[in-house]
Amino acid sequence: MTWSLALDLLGTFFFAISGSLLAAQRGFDIVGSLLLGSLTGLGGGVIRDLVIGAPPAAFNEPFHLIPPVVAAIVVFFLSGTVQRYSRILLVFDAGGLALFCTTGTITALRAGMNPAAAIVLGVTTGVGGGLLRDVVANRDPQLFNPNDLYAVPAFFGAALMAGLWFTGWLGPSGQLVVAVLVFAFRVLSLRFHWHIVHAQGSQSRHSSDGVS
Amino acid sequence: MTWSLALDLLGTFFFAISGSLLAAQRGFDIVGSLLLGSLTGLGGGVIRDLVIGAPPAAFNEPFHLIPPVVAAIVVFFLSGTVQRYSRILLVFDAGGLALFCTTGTITALRAGMNPAAAIVLGVTTGVGGGLLRDVVANRDPQLFNPNDLYAVPAFFGAALMAGLWFTGWLGPSGQLVVAVLVFAFRVLSLRFHWHIVHAQGSQSRHSSDGVS
Amino acid sequence: MTWSLALDLLGTFFFAISGSLLAAQRGFDIVGSLLLGSLTGLGGGVIRDLVIGAPPAAFNEPFHLIPPVVAAIVVFFLSGTVQRYSRILLVFDAGGLALFCTTGTITALRAGMNPAAAIVLGVTTGVGGGLLRDVVANRDPQLFNPNDLYAVPAFFGAALMAGLWFTGWLGPSGQLVVAVLVFAFRVLSLRFHWHIVHAQGSQSRHSSDGVS
Repeated sequence: MTWSLALDLLGTFFFAISGSLLAAQRGFDIVGSLLLGSLTGLGGGVIRDLVIGAPPAAFNEPFHLIPPVVAAIVVFFLSGTVQRYSRILLVFDAGGLALFCTTGTITALRAGMNPAAAIVLGVTTGVGGGLLRDVVANRDPQLFNPNDLYAVPAFFGAALMAGLWFTGWLGPSGQLVVAVLVFAFRVLSLRFHWHIVHAQGSQSRHSSDGVS
Repeated sequence: MTWSLALDLLGTFFFAISGSLLAAQRGFDIVGSLLLGSLTGLGGGVIRDLVIGAPPAAFNEPFHLIPPVVAAIVVFFLSGTVQRYSRILLVFDAGGLALFCTTGTITALRAGMNPAAAIVLGVTTGVGGGLLRDVVANRDPQLFNPNDLYAVPAFFGAALMAGLWFTGWLGPSGQLVVAVLVFAFRVLSLRFHWHIVHAQGSQSRHSSDGVS
Repeated sequence: MTWSLALDLLGTFFFAISGSLLAAQRGFDIVGSLLLGSLTGLGGGVIRDLVIGAPPAAFNEPFHLIPPVVAAIVVFFLSGTVQRYSRILLVFDAGGLALFCTTGTITALRAGMNPAAAIVLGVTTGVGGGLLRDVVANRDPQLFNPNDLYAVPAFFGAALMAGLWFTGWLGPSGQLVVAVLVFAFRVLSLRFHWHIVHAQGSQSRHSSDGVS
């Protein structure tokens, strides 16, 4: 098993946990939990593979199905209060984001895509699973929360991966280092409420503490 | 016309009826009814074909467009009260689910996929159209209703198809028999309010009659 | 640069503006604005290319990313009141719809699809980006608004393109003429509140002025 595959499966597990936790929070049953976890954990990778034109790994290699199954079982036996779910969900989501923006970029580069496209596909892979999760669970996507950086760490990680790839400095553990940096960036941005200017420059309607 | 194609078109029709009924319930116009019916009837199959890497049959063979057109016309001329729609919608949805989980599995197996992937793709094909319908109509997906089995009959049907395929017992009408069993399972589960344990094992917040 | 590519990029820009305007209306930050604009501007084309089986142009040719970037910047520096956004959004959305239903149809015909499939794919390309925009922004899709024609102009444009293609009358500027006709049809239908019969023929629950 390669580094890249191990990190891909770990990212799948993290995102699947976030999906199964959201399912538990919403009172879904164990099958709904498995399905929402699978969609979250595997969705970004399936989009990535469809864009590249490769057979989706989630269907081609059945061991990709193991992390969502484990995640649904773990969440099922989790003790703890529902009130604490939101924060744990965000941490696992950050882990999935960190790993998937790197695996998405490197998969795209290995498939011969140009660096700009590889960065865009890395960001898409990173944010895709969580966006699908929020859309099918009928809630406002985390991705668009204006008081929260979400895509920025993914963009940073994808650009860093592409840069390291082209300078030739991307050693075997380089992907893990980038993922850890992205995870730290994401978690610190949550902890210290970092955010950026709103889409409308002239005024800031929804937040009184906007940077704009 | 093969058995498999006939059942695929019938499944498309059932799902299209469910989409057009939801459109009628929501007060959409006839074009919206046709579009929501088409998305519901053809969506699962398009996802299936994209994953397999085949040209989507809905676009490749234009006669796949006939069932959604007929469904929109049938719903338009249906007399009857809007209040009764929800139940009829569920029955047609069950028919689509039953047929599509079998056609999805067999298409995947014929394309050379392994049994685990074929079962997952069968379930995806079965639940995909209804999930797209509910997501674009901006309502909580039927798939995740915790007081309702939805994916379980699809999983049962897909696994049965894969088992029959590998034992060589899948005769020409085998697919129809499996579809009838899945339909019966789904309708009985609705009738008798069968449900399973919730995603969070330790408590059952939303339902006082949970099995958990 | 061909006519067709120029019109495709212009359509991308129009749809991206509509996505970024919706993001501004919702109070998203500048990155959310860029992402929603990109999804709206590029989503229809990516679906089109995946169905055809071609590598998605948005990823393959990075200059497709320029219109969404420009759109996010334009919306950011737009002065003007949020109250006026809804109408401007509809006009840009109409421009995207008009251009994309023509580019979708012609791309499908060039890929050797039959006319019925090409028309369906043209409509899908035209309405796909806006549908994705509304779904991920968690609002009722414009596409299904019963007091509004949306898919009808797209269908008209796609059918006209297919007709001109097969009669051989589709000269170099023919696509632009069809797009202008579709745009005019869409804007006039908004201005004069044109609408069609509802999905349920026997009664009209939501609208007292229904044609039905």
